Amino acid sequence: MTTMNRRFVLASRPTGAPSEDNFRLDRVAVPELAPGQVLVRHHYLSLDPYMRGRMSDQKSYAPPQPLNEVMLGGTVGEVVASQAASFAVGDHVSGAGGWQEYSVVNAEVPGALRKIDTAQIPMAAYLGAVGMPGITAWIGLHLICEPKPGETLVVSAASGAVGSVVGQLAKARGCRVIGVAGGKDKCDYVTGELGFDACLDYKAVRDVEAFGAELRKAAPAGIDGYFENVGGMVLEAVMRQMNAFGRIAVCGMISSYNGTPQPIARPDLILTARLKIQGFIVSEHLPLWAAARTELAAGVAAGAIKYRETIADGLDRAPSAFLGLLQGKNFGKQLVKLV
Amino acid sequence: MTTMNRRFVLASRPTGAPSEDNFRLDRVAVPELAPGQVLVRHHYLSLDPYMRGRMSDQKSYAPPQPLNEVMLGGTVGEVVASQAASFAVGDHVSGAGGWQEYSVVNAEVPGALRKIDTAQIPMAAYLGAVGMPGITAWIGLHLICEPKPGETLVVSAASGAVGSVVGQLAKARGCRVIGVAGGKDKCDYVTGELGFDACLDYKAVRDVEAFGAELRKAAPAGIDGYFENVGGMVLEAVMRQMNAFGRIAVCGMISSYNGTPQPIARPDLILTARLKIQGFIVSEHLPLWAAARTELAAGVAAGAIKYRETIADGLDRAPSAFLGLLQGKNFGKQLVKLV
Repeated sequence: MTTMNRRFVLASRPTGAPSEDNFRLDRVAVPELAPGQVLVRHHYLSLDPYMRGRMSDQKSYAPPQPLNEVMLGGTVGEVVASQAASFAVGDHVSGAGGWQEYSVVNAEVPGALRKIDTAQIPMAAYLGAVGMPGITAWIGLHLICEPKPGETLVVSAASGAVGSVVGQLAKARGCRVIGVAGGKDKCDYVTGELGFDACLDYKAVRDVEAFGAELRKAAPAGIDGYFENVGGMVLEAVMRQMNAFGRIAVCGMISSYNGTPQPIARPDLILTARLKIQGFIVSEHLPLWAAARTELAAGVAAGAIKYRETIADGLDRAPSAFLGLLQGKNFGKQLVKLV
Repeated sequence: MTTMNRRFVLASRPTGAPSEDNFRLDRVAVPELAPGQVLVRHHYLSLDPYMRGRMSDQKSYAPPQPLNEVMLGGTVGEVVASQAASFAVGDHVSGAGGWQEYSVVNAEVPGALRKIDTAQIPMAAYLGAVGMPGITAWIGLHLICEPKPGETLVVSAASGAVGSVVGQLAKARGCRVIGVAGGKDKCDYVTGELGFDACLDYKAVRDVEAFGAELRKAAPAGIDGYFENVGGMVLEAVMRQMNAFGRIAVCGMISSYNGTPQPIARPDLILTARLKIQGFIVSEHLPLWAAARTELAAGVAAGAIKYRETIADGLDRAPSAFLGLLQGKNFGKQLVKLV
């Protein structure tokens, strides 16, 4: 019996904000497995801001998503057929299966598929706090922000999959942690549930001056580290209040993904405050992944690292959920449930 | 007999570009020396862009130059009277004597006064290639640019006291080195005398696009390191052509010293090219000074490190020479000859 697979391909490249028209739903038959291959049925698909960059064909750190091919993306699921000795039917696995219900994986390619232990950790968390977003948080924090006890750290997109982990890790290292998020609900969650010392609602302020005034109240001793996910006004306000030798880890600049980036208005501060501003990509620091995973898995299993998910139901909802993610409509990790 | 000292004090703080009115010439008697004190007759005064920052009272890395006190500045000269066991009349010394003909120094304060060997190295070079500017070049290059053989490095203000040393050190480390300077004479000197691979005249281009086109020709393999002295258009053009993992050492941003800094237009490049941008101040890296001095002194004594000086004659010319320095009218290290 032939298994049918449904998948989204990139139909066209967006100019400015993407729309549902940029995606096309295909139905294709799952092919026979060759030796060494595994068929995975996806339980969850991860939606992440980096996907917006891949939809464009301008120069970036990764090659663009090819047109008319399945949208790339992280997945977790279950092995439903195997021609590979290292995987058995029923194994829970994480991989990069893309925006589709099934994927055929060459299991012998290093890193293509990884068994995951779902006894103590929910499968979906391997796309969030113990997956790529959590590891991104860990690596940016340790490699660039280098938080020391007593320092003040600011995190933007603080209720999101990356930002929520950044702040919880920094709290565990003895920092004062200030989140930035959009809306009262997210801010209440960041302070109430995640335990940040404060959270500023960037939507509730008029301009960079007003935001700066709130920031001064929340971070009276100045800011030593900033984990940047958004760019724009938040970056500018934070830079003005950085202490000498402050470190800014640039993980994302979601405010610029759909158009012209907002300039850095005060580059002179880089000199006068001796700042370090550094961009990084999680996949370029593989030697650190094991240490990151160990700490994150222990934290999630013990309930010390908390997270929240927004789950879209069914593959058909992937495009609209992705567009919502770019507008900050999600609350926590954005997933698509496929089973 | 009383020795009279002439000195410039800061009379008022500039708004925008400074003028000669901001300085006032005083005549004061040199006081009697107390035990431990030394009287230095200055042969040369160093004029440096950082002095512009100190004239303002906005928050920066150093406290502002106090009003009605002698302008701060590096000096070299000769001990003409001594009440300190460690210095004898006739010793050549470097220190921070300021914009004046004589200074009384508490010689026992660590670092206040340093004996210099002028047998193989001209006294004035201790204010340039083997002094603070040369050490600034060495530290920014090693600490932040981290040049590797075969990489391409760009240096702005390339004929200046700092930039000229940056480029020559990077050439010695096997880099392709591109200078940026203002005017054909300076560019000819940078390639002809200093041995840079190319030098771009920023005054000869219309805008950042035109400058970028020249830069692509000079650095066909992209840019791995940038030593930033000016900010503005040059920084923007360089950032657009940085290779992955490029490093930018921010030493100065002279284009912004008299007014609003020019924004960084493309902060998204920090992420997509995984750039590191870091500001530094030479005086905060004292443990590196000895290694820097050793290499710079050997290079200057052997004629391997070349430099050029613009020398104003007499203390009276210090203000006009300083204003010229801020406009790039000097060629190489700007000094004032006092003897």
